[in-house]
Amino acid sequence: MPVIAVESFLKGAWVTPAATAVHIRSAINGRVIARSGHAGFDAQAVIDYARLIGGPALREMTFHDRARKLKELALYIRERREVLYELSFDTGGTLSDHKIDVDGGIGTMLVISSKGRRDLPDANICLDGEVEALSRQGSFVGQHIMTPLQGVGVHINAFNFPVWGLMEKLAPCLLAGVPAIVKPATATVQVAEAAFRMMVESGIFPDGAIQFVAGSVGDLLDRLGPQDVVGFTGSAETALKLRSNPSIMRSATRFMSEQDSLNASVLGPDAGPGTVEFDLFSKEVSQEMTARAGQKCTAIRRIMVPEIFAGDVAEAIEARLANVQVGDPHDPATGMGALVNNGQKADVLEKAGLIGSEARLVFGEMNRFAPAGSGMENGAFMPPMLFQCADPDVADHVHRTEAFGPVSTLMGYRDASHAAELVNRGGGSLVSSVITADPDFAAQIARRSAAFNGRLYFNNADSMAESTGHGSPVPHMVHGGPGRAGGGEELGGVRGAFHYMQRTAIQGAPGIIAAVGQTWVPGADRSEPPRHPFRLRMSGLSPGQSITTDAREVTEEDIEHFARFTGDTFYAHMDEDAARANPFFPGRVAHGYLLLSFAAGLFVDPDPGPVLANTGLNNLRFQKPVSPGDSIRATLTVRRMTRRNHDYGEVRWHVCLTNQDDDQVAEYELLTMNAL
Amino acid sequence: MPVIAVESFLKGAWVTPAATAVHIRSAINGRVIARSGHAGFDAQAVIDYARLIGGPALREMTFHDRARKLKELALYIRERREVLYELSFDTGGTLSDHKIDVDGGIGTMLVISSKGRRDLPDANICLDGEVEALSRQGSFVGQHIMTPLQGVGVHINAFNFPVWGLMEKLAPCLLAGVPAIVKPATATVQVAEAAFRMMVESGIFPDGAIQFVAGSVGDLLDRLGPQDVVGFTGSAETALKLRSNPSIMRSATRFMSEQDSLNASVLGPDAGPGTVEFDLFSKEVSQEMTARAGQKCTAIRRIMVPEIFAGDVAEAIEARLANVQVGDPHDPATGMGALVNNGQKADVLEKAGLIGSEARLVFGEMNRFAPAGSGMENGAFMPPMLFQCADPDVADHVHRTEAFGPVSTLMGYRDASHAAELVNRGGGSLVSSVITADPDFAAQIARRSAAFNGRLYFNNADSMAESTGHGSPVPHMVHGGPGRAGGGEELGGVRGAFHYMQRTAIQGAPGIIAAVGQTWVPGADRSEPPRHPFRLRMSGLSPGQSITTDAREVTEEDIEHFARFTGDTFYAHMDEDAARANPFFPGRVAHGYLLLSFAAGLFVDPDPGPVLANTGLNNLRFQKPVSPGDSIRATLTVRRMTRRNHDYGEVRWHVCLTNQDDDQVAEYELLTMNAL
Repeated sequence: MPVIAVESFLKGAWVTPAATAVHIRSAINGRVIARSGHAGFDAQAVIDYARLIGGPALREMTFHDRARKLKELALYIRERREVLYELSFDTGGTLSDHKIDVDGGIGTMLVISSKGRRDLPDANICLDGEVEALSRQGSFVGQHIMTPLQGVGVHINAFNFPVWGLMEKLAPCLLAGVPAIVKPATATVQVAEAAFRMMVESGIFPDGAIQFVAGSVGDLLDRLGPQDVVGFTGSAETALKLRSNPSIMRSATRFMSEQDSLNASVLGPDAGPGTVEFDLFSKEVSQEMTARAGQKCTAIRRIMVPEIFAGDVAEAIEARLANVQVGDPHDPATGMGALVNNGQKADVLEKAGLIGSEARLVFGEMNRFAPAGSGMENGAFMPPMLFQCADPDVADHVHRTEAFGPVSTLMGYRDASHAAELVNRGGGSLVSSVITADPDFAAQIARRSAAFNGRLYFNNADSMAESTGHGSPVPHMVHGGPGRAGGGEELGGVRGAFHYMQRTAIQGAPGIIAAVGQTWVPGADRSEPPRHPFRLRMSGLSPGQSITTDAREVTEEDIEHFARFTGDTFYAHMDEDAARANPFFPGRVAHGYLLLSFAAGLFVDPDPGPVLANTGLNNLRFQKPVSPGDSIRATLTVRRMTRRNHDYGEVRWHVCLTNQDDDQVAEYELLTMNAL
Repeated sequence: MPVIAVESFLKGAWVTPAATAVHIRSAINGRVIARSGHAGFDAQAVIDYARLIGGPALREMTFHDRARKLKELALYIRERREVLYELSFDTGGTLSDHKIDVDGGIGTMLVISSKGRRDLPDANICLDGEVEALSRQGSFVGQHIMTPLQGVGVHINAFNFPVWGLMEKLAPCLLAGVPAIVKPATATVQVAEAAFRMMVESGIFPDGAIQFVAGSVGDLLDRLGPQDVVGFTGSAETALKLRSNPSIMRSATRFMSEQDSLNASVLGPDAGPGTVEFDLFSKEVSQEMTARAGQKCTAIRRIMVPEIFAGDVAEAIEARLANVQVGDPHDPATGMGALVNNGQKADVLEKAGLIGSEARLVFGEMNRFAPAGSGMENGAFMPPMLFQCADPDVADHVHRTEAFGPVSTLMGYRDASHAAELVNRGGGSLVSSVITADPDFAAQIARRSAAFNGRLYFNNADSMAESTGHGSPVPHMVHGGPGRAGGGEELGGVRGAFHYMQRTAIQGAPGIIAAVGQTWVPGADRSEPPRHPFRLRMSGLSPGQSITTDAREVTEEDIEHFARFTGDTFYAHMDEDAARANPFFPGRVAHGYLLLSFAAGLFVDPDPGPVLANTGLNNLRFQKPVSPGDSIRATLTVRRMTRRNHDYGEVRWHVCLTNQDDDQVAEYELLTMNAL
């Protein structure tokens, strides 16, 4: 097989490796498989290309436009994923590892796309929270908004999941509207480049939106400013070095760091030998130790079990590890492949040695190990190693030293408080898991240890059939943890996109706030539509169009009638004396649902037209009781519109009901589905 | 007057100044008024006192408990505020400046208290967002939570607003449940200490919750870890020095920085001479220049006006500045007092000199200036200085050099895009303002410059009577800006508290999620209450208690009847053929409000009891149409309870309506007010 020449993609063009390019060797047999590294390059020009060409093009689109492109991109790669699997074997992983990487990346991009369309508007400014009343008369109000940063996202990825890492960082960045410069890890750059090449070939994102630096970033970080974001995944040492960059420090450039951390898994005191949870625990632990040969930021490094179960757990895990074939990842019987290269293997063994100074090796002696398969002599193989630590309170390395491979340490705890204390000794983790059927134990660990973890994963017999795994970040939930884990945060639905956006407090007259936020707010001007707004297609609507209905009296008879018809004979509607005794009512009052129903009767336009359905209602508040003899009218105002597909979209209406004195009696947001 | 001995408050005890204490001089006359600075202290012991005594005591309380204490504390200080005004004159400010500081601080704490009770639960864990479906069958779900960090908040305050700064940082920190160590600025430490002493004397917060370091912090920052937070307000240089601390870097300690920045104010092209907005602009600019003698992080440093109006604006501002009496702040006729001390004055004049190298001084010659009042010779007085810059595109200092005093530079712009470009040249600001009556101009500036500003303040004739001022952070809105402004964020209602909390993704079976979040979620176990839950007081309710009603058929007659009664004769309810043509309906369907009304009829318990009122409804979604002949039943489940006062509290119920096939047809959250 020819040696792959890994190229960079800079300023819209592919750049071939220079003579000084480094050689990348197969994890399995040590053969040179690729060359990577361009000649020196003009980092400022690359940054400017992103900022001045990519950024404006992305910001021309709406969140929904960009979300749709992410979906397209994910599907484009899905069609070609076999190529990526094939290329991945030389990184040491098994087919199942590749699927976590490739399919995981594709799935992440698809979820971020769909979350973006669900949770962000079809616009380029996003509202954050409600309108804030800042004045008595309402002539001056506040609103928080989020807008895309006008810089570049620099993504520094780890070697372990070259495709997932690429896609999970790109998706929120591009969704936000920020162009990206991707710096993949050299050890697996050929896989990242292949995936990136598909992205470029697809032509889905505009020029300047994505660039790829296969080689040194030179002085790129020195040139970052206050609108840029660095997204880093890797070791704590590298993160510290990068985030200390003087430009980054001086510009307060956002630096999001995901660092491999000393993640823990805790077996609940209820989950002794013989329980479903006991088996589940040993299974998850051994899977996490061996998946991707333990080269996962989220892998379980510390196994915590009730002291009395320690022996049983050690045996159960040993038994499972003994059944894992380590060797040629092409062999379907292989459960664990190689580390990414021999440098990594040497580092892991060195760290395992430090752990071994505080804990006893109970499984995985290196000198009794040989990988399965032929021609594997130069591969970066090692056995999974299980240590057991007798005194975790005194030990230090087991809580602090990460061997980034199939290495984990078992330790006993006395009670929930002790377990949480040991978890927290990690100084901040990406994830800890708790296998328990006892909700109280779960809640205790959460109360004491949530602040030390970016994610807490609970599993038991109820959830095991559908649980997603201790080590798998899912795109719906945030990924990243405090302290040792880097203090960063990624994913979490649209939360990840917000890290590429600025929150800005907007203050002003309601009309100004409405114009800035592209959403009508109470107090802003209302306009009269050319006809009943229910007779207008969505394309004919604009925020602020409004109608006020005629008034309708609510009689005692109406209330009686409604009560009997619906069966809602609550005393506040039926009994004058009893109602008056209630602290909120002056006497008998109309049902809230009667008011809603009458309001609909007042504003609905009965004949077929562009309004297809009332799909729901938000934030209904009954503000003032309506007594028999009062009359109500409704004011209906277009707040904003969101296209949902080629045929229709959602319209959000502000509805307020007022009485004969113009006092507001109820307020809500009404949702309708309208033809475009 | 005797010299004030400013004390520190460490580990629950007051510590007197050491012999090495520094002297603090009056801004007005240079007299020594205070001594501050303790002997060396054991920073680790102070941190441990906060972490081990204060933190656990605070975390024993709920958000509401702590919010109530904040209110109590604010009111305690309000009763004693005259003392603080009196003490403040020697810092150079006028009574109006003291009120901004003292009343502003009290008001901020009151708002944060009330936001805390409104927007956070009466618990110590707060949910963030909705339950995430992570599995097809729903046996494994996700939920984000926020919990208090288990470290300490270190607050490093600026000299300009010693009371506001103290209170605006303490309020979110204590609300979150995190103890604080306050390091006031030395120049005005005697005022901060007086306010802090009131807090201690009040005895409102538990031991260890607040400590006060009047003097050097020694190696305190070197001892911070991953659960601690630094909140800094001051200069960019000091911020850079502090945030570079190796411990802070290594532990990824959160560092929130508010830095004085090159804030801008823009006059809209619509707001020429003769308009209300023109006068408003010159008034706000001159007020911002002179309030607190321009020593405000948010002060207007750059005045941007349409080129053709530059001369008129300069004249208008000059005229206003000429009317401002500068001198003894005790004199009620004085509009601007002194800078805080002569060191500060020298620094401002030096920076003004740099600006003067690029811009012409049009008002405020130092050599023609003398303060009003007697005995002011040694005071730190200077005149307001207005510069005008002819070529702001070429100029550098006017966008980059902050003179932290009454100094501002006027410059012309060509169009909205140029104005935004100049705003953005500040490299990130706390606030920029736009005075315009044109919503389009406002929206253009927001679109181009929001990413460079923590706050955008719009004002015009509509809002001027109630607007809160360019320079005043309000507690409802975030305070802090990107880049040069530090990249930090404070306040913003409960958002400020979240910076002292960790967001954690929780995954597990619904029953586990419910236990951790103290809120029932769909899929978690339901329990049968001892009787109809509407017959139970709030204290007898617990999450998960649930009833399912009998079924009720919805007949065609019901639909006809409801349509005629309410007037809602929308065709989808009335006309089989027309309804069938609608993409969402199989034929005629029941009104959504009919279903809500019937549901209430099914679950309401009519007689007087602990349920006092249905106050509202959230997130109603109609999920499946109900056709004539279908029957519906409602399942009502307690989600969570929140005490509102001594008599009653709010109960949130999950309601789902199902049809005869057990398909869900609607889902919503119902709010009731219940007797305790």
